Amino acid sequence: MANKLPKSFQCATEFTLAVLGGKWKTVILCYLKQRPMRYSELRKLLPNLSDKVLTERLRELMSSGLVAHRKSAEGTSSGTYSLTARARSLGDVLHHIYIWGHDNAAVYHVEVGEPFKQLDRDRP
Amino acid sequence: MANKLPKSFQCATEFTLAVLGGKWKTVILCYLKQRPMRYSELRKLLPNLSDKVLTERLRELMSSGLVAHRKSAEGTSSGTYSLTARARSLGDVLHHIYIWGHDNAAVYHVEVGEPFKQLDRDRP
Repeated sequence: MANKLPKSFQCATEFTLAVLGGKWKTVILCYLKQRPMRYSELRKLLPNLSDKVLTERLRELMSSGLVAHRKSAEGTSSGTYSLTARARSLGDVLHHIYIWGHDNAAVYHVEVGEPFKQLDRDRP
Repeated sequence: MANKLPKSFQCATEFTLAVLGGKWKTVILCYLKQRPMRYSELRKLLPNLSDKVLTERLRELMSSGLVAHRKSAEGTSSGTYSLTARARSLGDVLHHIYIWGHDNAAVYHVEVGEPFKQLDRDRP
């Protein structure tokens, strides 16, 4: 993405939001911040996304240098996706986005899921 | 917005991003976090937005309870826009979005403006 970004932004906020790249990419980054994951795990965490869109968003995150894909040594699985060092610098941003949602859901009378708990329950 | 939001979200991150409501609304919130502003000031800070879009985004932020509009006592100006208490709870999120952009622009070889300096220079 670095080479797709404009060369200048009106303000720092606009630049950060351009790097995050929208809602679904930010959600994917938040999940991968927890731990590296296989495609099938991300698939379960994002049931509202089609395979096509999830694949596209992952490809965009890889081309922007925020997500790396590592094939499994044995070649038995599709490998794992993880944050790059560049993406890990976004840790504080992602943390505060998550924490605010967690702490303020009740104020807005909405329910937020705990998808990792669900993922762990589904583990063999 | 509270009544326009879905009642449940897959994860806390998705909820926060829905409240922020996209790039331009987040940028407007970041500016108003600094201080209350007149429309004409926001207008100068957001030269890439048309009047129509800026007005719409402000209206959406007001209807979602994040921005308040106060008319001037004398009726001589169009009044000021400011963050509500609800929006001020987003302070940490907005701060970290801004700070990351400020600290990482050089890494990405992009320039970020300092729009407040420009605004202050333009003051009568």
